Amino acid sequence: MAADPFLGWMTDIQQQIERTLETLLPQTASAPCDLHQAMRYATLEGGKRVRPLLVCAAGELTGARQDNLLRIGSAVEMIHAYSLVHDDMPCMDNDVLRRGKPTCHIAFGEANALLVGDALQARAFELLATPLEGVEATAQLAMLATLGHASGHAGMVGGQAIDLDSVGRQLTLPELEYMHMLKTGALIRASVLLGARAGRVLDADRQARLDHFAKCIGLAFQVVDDVLDCEADTNTLGKTAGKDAANDKPTYVSLMGFSEAKRFACELRDDAFAALEDFGPDAQRLRALADYVVARSF
Amino acid sequence: MAADPFLGWMTDIQQQIERTLETLLPQTASAPCDLHQAMRYATLEGGKRVRPLLVCAAGELTGARQDNLLRIGSAVEMIHAYSLVHDDMPCMDNDVLRRGKPTCHIAFGEANALLVGDALQARAFELLATPLEGVEATAQLAMLATLGHASGHAGMVGGQAIDLDSVGRQLTLPELEYMHMLKTGALIRASVLLGARAGRVLDADRQARLDHFAKCIGLAFQVVDDVLDCEADTNTLGKTAGKDAANDKPTYVSLMGFSEAKRFACELRDDAFAALEDFGPDAQRLRALADYVVARSF
Repeated sequence: MAADPFLGWMTDIQQQIERTLETLLPQTASAPCDLHQAMRYATLEGGKRVRPLLVCAAGELTGARQDNLLRIGSAVEMIHAYSLVHDDMPCMDNDVLRRGKPTCHIAFGEANALLVGDALQARAFELLATPLEGVEATAQLAMLATLGHASGHAGMVGGQAIDLDSVGRQLTLPELEYMHMLKTGALIRASVLLGARAGRVLDADRQARLDHFAKCIGLAFQVVDDVLDCEADTNTLGKTAGKDAANDKPTYVSLMGFSEAKRFACELRDDAFAALEDFGPDAQRLRALADYVVARSF
Repeated sequence: MAADPFLGWMTDIQQQIERTLETLLPQTASAPCDLHQAMRYATLEGGKRVRPLLVCAAGELTGARQDNLLRIGSAVEMIHAYSLVHDDMPCMDNDVLRRGKPTCHIAFGEANALLVGDALQARAFELLATPLEGVEATAQLAMLATLGHASGHAGMVGGQAIDLDSVGRQLTLPELEYMHMLKTGALIRASVLLGARAGRVLDADRQARLDHFAKCIGLAFQVVDDVLDCEADTNTLGKTAGKDAANDKPTYVSLMGFSEAKRFACELRDDAFAALEDFGPDAQRLRALADYVVARSF
C-alpha cells in the first residue's frame, strides 16, 4: 500500500518542528534550570502542531523558505503552549491532564507554571523579531503586529475572557461564534497569514481569500474540538474529556446538537475550499490540512 | 523659588505617558469589558514610570521623536505592569496592596489577573511592532528582539524564577546580583537601549558606555528598592513594606547591612555617571534620572 503523501509531509513537518523547538527553547543545563525544564515540558513532545503545519502549508503557497517557516511555526506554537499552561491553572480550568501528561502546574507547581507561560510568550516574540533570511524587515514587523494582535485582548486572551464570563450562562450561537473566533480562531488565522507573509506578497484579492480560508478553518477547528470533547473518552483525547459539559460551558454540540455540529464543520471546510479555488496546486497542502482538521471528528 | 527643571520635565513625561497609555489600552466600553477594565486598572494611575522616563531620556541622547518615545515607553511600562500583576498573585507573592490600591487579583479575581498580564504582554509587543514614523524597520525589529530577550527566560522572568528558588535559602552577593540583573535590571537596561535606538545610531564605543550606564542604574534601582522596603512604612511605599524580610528573602540590606547598601547605591550611580562622561549636554536627563533613582532612598 502506497503511503499517503500528505500524512508523510505532516509527520516530516511535525518532526522538524519538534527539533526546531528543542533548539529554540532554553536548555535545561542553564539556570534557572527549573523554569527551563518546565518550558520544555510544556512545549515538547505534544500536540498535533496544527498551527505550525498551517504556517508551513501557507508558506508553500508563497514560496517561503522552509527554515523561516519552521521558526515562525515554533513561535506560534510557543504562544499556543503558553495559553494551554495558563488555561489549565487552578484559577482557570483547574485541569490536571494535558496531552496525556500531568499539566505543568501539577508537575512544576503553580508559580513555575505562571512563569513558564510568561516566558514562552516573550520567547515567541523574541524569535519572530530575530531577522529571517530573505524576509524584509517590514514584512517581519507586520508578522509581529499580526501575532501580537491575535494573541492579546482582541484575540486569544480576549476570547478566554469571554469564555470565563460565559460559564453557567446561556450564550446565543453568534456569541459562541464570536468567542471562538477570538479564543481559537485568531491564532489559527494568524498562523496562515504569517506563513504566507514569509514568501511572495499576495495581491489584495488573494490575500482576502486566504484570510477567509483561515477564518473558516479556525472556526471549524473549534467546532470539531467540541464534537471530540463530547464523544471521545479521556484516553483517546489525552486531556480530560467531557469537561465542557461538566463545567456547564456552552459548546457547538450543546447549542446545535451533535449531528448538526458535524454538518457545520463540513460546511466550513467546503467554504474554506471554495476560498482557495483558483490558487492551483500551490494550495494543495492547505486544502489537505483543512480536510484533516475536519476529518479528525469522523 | 524657581521650579526644578528636571522635576518639571519628569512630571510632564509622566503625564504624557499616562495619556498615551490611556489611548493605547483597550477601552472599557468594548467587550470583553471586565478584561479591558482590569488592564486599565493595573496600568493607569500608578507608579513613577521610571522605565518610560528612561526611554525618553535615552531618546534625547540620540534625537529621537517624542511621539515614538512615548509609544515605546508605554510598551515597556505594559511589560512592567503585567509583571507586577502576575507577581502579586497568590501563587507568587500573594500580595493584596500595590500602588496604594488592592492588587489586580483582589479587585478582579485571579483568572482575570492572569489574563490581564497575558494581554498586557501581547499588547506591548503589538505596539512596538506597529511602524514608528521615521524609524527604520530593522531598528524596530532590533528593539523587539531586545524587549523579548529582556522580558523572558533570560531576563525578567528568569530573574523571578531564581527569586522563587531563593526563598528561605542563603544567597551569596554575586548570586543576589545575578538575580537582580535579570529580574529588575534587564527591563531597565532595555528601556535605555530602546529609547536610544529610536534615534541616531550610536558608535560601538558609545553604545557600550550607554549599556554600562543602563546596567548600573538597573542594579542601583534594586538596591534602593531593598533599602526602601526595609525603612519605609506601608503607607509611604504604597505596597506592603518589609515583606522581603517577612518572606525570608535575601536582599542587599540583609546581605550588606543598611549603610553599606546605601553606599553601594551611590557607588553604582557614580559608575553610571562616569560611563556618560563625554556624552555632553544631550545626556543631561539620563544623569538627572540616575541621581533621582538613587536619591529616592535619602
